[in-house]
Amino acid sequence: MIQITHKSTTLRKAIAQAIVKVSLPETIQAIREKTVPKGDVLECARVAGLFAAKRTADMIPDCHPLPVEFTGISYEISEMEIRILCEIHTVYKTGVEVEAMHAASVVALTMYDMLKPIDKGISIEQIKLVEKKGGKSDFKKLSE
Amino acid sequence: MIQITHKSTTLRKAIAQAIVKVSLPETIQAIREKTVPKGDVLECARVAGLFAAKRTADMIPDCHPLPVEFTGISYEISEMEIRILCEIHTVYKTGVEVEAMHAASVVALTMYDMLKPIDKGISIEQIKLVEKKGGKSDFKKLSE
Amino acid sequence: MIQITHKSTTLRKAIAQAIVKVSLPETIQAIREKTVPKGDVLECARVAGLFAAKRTADMIPDCHPLPVEFTGISYEISEMEIRILCEIHTVYKTGVEVEAMHAASVVALTMYDMLKPIDKGISIEQIKLVEKKGGKSDFKKLSE
Amino acid sequence: MIQITHKSTTLRKAIAQAIVKVSLPETIQAIREKTVPKGDVLECARVAGLFAAKRTADMIPDCHPLPVEFTGISYEISEMEIRILCEIHTVYKTGVEVEAMHAASVVALTMYDMLKPIDKGISIEQIKLVEKKGGKSDFKKLSE
Amino acid sequence: MIQITHKSTTLRKAIAQAIVKVSLPETIQAIREKTVPKGDVLECARVAGLFAAKRTADMIPDCHPLPVEFTGISYEISEMEIRILCEIHTVYKTGVEVEAMHAASVVALTMYDMLKPIDKGISIEQIKLVEKKGGKSDFKKLSE
Amino acid sequence: MIQITHKSTTLRKAIAQAIVKVSLPETIQAIREKTVPKGDVLECARVAGLFAAKRTADMIPDCHPLPVEFTGISYEISEMEIRILCEIHTVYKTGVEVEAMHAASVVALTMYDMLKPIDKGISIEQIKLVEKKGGKSDFKKLSE
Repeated sequence: MIQITHKSTTLRKAIAQAIVKVSLPETIQAIREKTVPKGDVLECARVAGLFAAKRTADMIPDCHPLPVEFTGISYEISEMEIRILCEIHTVYKTGVEVEAMHAASVVALTMYDMLKPIDKGISIEQIKLVEKKGGKSDFKKLSE
Repeated sequence: MIQITHKSTTLRKAIAQAIVKVSLPETIQAIREKTVPKGDVLECARVAGLFAAKRTADMIPDCHPLPVEFTGISYEISEMEIRILCEIHTVYKTGVEVEAMHAASVVALTMYDMLKPIDKGISIEQIKLVEKKGGKSDFKKLSE
Repeated sequence: MIQITHKSTTLRKAIAQAIVKVSLPETIQAIREKTVPKGDVLECARVAGLFAAKRTADMIPDCHPLPVEFTGISYEISEMEIRILCEIHTVYKTGVEVEAMHAASVVALTMYDMLKPIDKGISIEQIKLVEKKGGKSDFKKLSE
Repeated sequence: MIQITHKSTTLRKAIAQAIVKVSLPETIQAIREKTVPKGDVLECARVAGLFAAKRTADMIPDCHPLPVEFTGISYEISEMEIRILCEIHTVYKTGVEVEAMHAASVVALTMYDMLKPIDKGISIEQIKLVEKKGGKSDFKKLSE
Repeated sequence: MIQITHKSTTLRKAIAQAIVKVSLPETIQAIREKTVPKGDVLECARVAGLFAAKRTADMIPDCHPLPVEFTGISYEISEMEIRILCEIHTVYKTGVEVEAMHAASVVALTMYDMLKPIDKGISIEQIKLVEKKGGKSDFKKLSE
Repeated sequence: MIQITHKSTTLRKAIAQAIVKVSLPETIQAIREKTVPKGDVLECARVAGLFAAKRTADMIPDCHPLPVEFTGISYEISEMEIRILCEIHTVYKTGVEVEAMHAASVVALTMYDMLKPIDKGISIEQIKLVEKKGGKSDFKKLSE
């Protein structure tokens, strides 16, 4: 685990995405109308993501435990896919990009788990960093 | 959480994949030659995956806690990507496909975390079920 | 921790309750209309309860780890309070009453946490067992 | 999860209570005389409460992880009930009232679990905030 | 993680020890008289051991999650050391020796943590398996 | 749990050791040559230690949760034993010696678990603090 005792504490933000691809338009409709038997998919997956953001250091060996001071999860829903966006902020010595990617992946996996009884063709795509502020280098994927 | 008290206990297996795409051939070389500063990427990520398989019910709201009785993690390494395969077995009342996908995603996130100091262009792609045995329906993606 | 190796595996069920008392009728209205700023209170608290049911042995020293095979969380909403009911099933050697009470308490605490910005007078009342089946003694509080 | 990156770090304290009601005076006597078969109820429950205080953010979706810098658990024992008081301190950007209530509830649940073999009529009552210092508003229930 | 799906479920027991060596006879006296400021050392450490037994698979990569069906922790106290004995039982496909050793080590570490304000010379010695029953091979260290 | 709200935040370091004794020279050889069936023992145990360092407050009742800002794990391998050294740094109000000892013990237990199929005579010895800096008193065992 990298030495960070000497680093300065600054505001750091990261946004990561994950994409859940469905195989049937009815799946998206069931999510929107909240008729999926296991519950309200967007809200359940959001709660799972809140917990995941906080437990990243428990899952990824070299991640430092850090004070997650904001987690926001939003969705862009189109005909056959949902784009999950997880934004995390901290005021600490190291960034939160892995935290954002971990939360995005757990949101996506929760959707997969809730949707598999009604759609056998779901996959998770393109878990990646979208934006990062604070720390040594800012970063923004312009095409996002 | 779905009622499974009445279901019969059978051997169930699942294999899931995740793909880690790098942006530089040097990244794959560093993994192979074990020169990545944070450690042996393939072995570290495998250990993180072993833990993740066991902690799926802790992360995904509707997943039942179950006896993970085998976890195997293997890699297919090509020029610009690593395909992670996670295979999980249980003898229980419900399948282990979300466990396999969760483990695959944590293996991939661990790689991302270990590699980001040497490659800024990594993404995680195509987390999906590859094979499933036992339970109501077997499943195999032939194209895999 | 009590010795249970010799006990027989049977279907066991427990229902526990917790009551969340609010101090303003507007609080109940905000829950029903899903206008509480932190999110959909009933759905968020339900997800927290699903996790809590599974993690009881992690929190209570003498609880045996056991296969939670069903968790159902329902609400009875009246003018100034919400009665939370958590029902848990297992097929195992010991009962799930503490699991049901633990889940009910975490559902209630999640509501408290989500509602405290809009209502300073919330308390949690009467966490208790309502019904129990299987094991040595069945139990039902008739007045419930 | 609420944004707290901009908030100032101050000393914050909270005291919460939970009440465990027993149905037999012999139960209180067994606790006092340390003859409960599962162990020393007051000490075991105190240890469970110490862990619970630290794991609140793991159980309640919107709670921020924070540095718990003091946890004190005390008891007021009367003829037919035990009043549990949990006091938590932190120096951070947000208060510890949910942490105190969570710890109090786990102390109470641990007592319930240890006592149920000797008393079938136990319930948990009145989990609520008793005192709070630091942050936007101080608070004290005078009647407590 | 080793494949155990095909193995038969039998009663398995293990006893492990750890030895806590103190540097002052007053330390043992303070433990016996329950005057250690942090609390009742034997009871606190016992509770930490109960939790540790259940969480072994969370800490050790290749350990299978398994139903811990009995944990007993006892102490042999002599002039300058405490011998901790942890006995664990399960009815499952694999043994509980690592669980017993893990619990013994956490009991010892809890003692260390509680005692370090009053004794700077404590160490932990000889964490090892003492007895094992069930499975392929029974085992007993006669000299124990 | 000791009150630390008033203490000053300083750089604190601790190094702890654990010794794994094997009963066969072939065991050490298998570790060096990475032929142990369960995997690369030194690397797997290191990863388990990274997680353990971060989860100390989850396992030991009175340990404060704290920002682990560096964990280094190294090995001194001789003919019949491995000496594990865990070094942890934080910038916080309390030291990290229990964290270092906890990590060292989990590294040792992971080795034990990986090696027991090939060596039945392994024990863990001398878990102790080797060096400590920062806080009230520095400490160094010269004989180490």
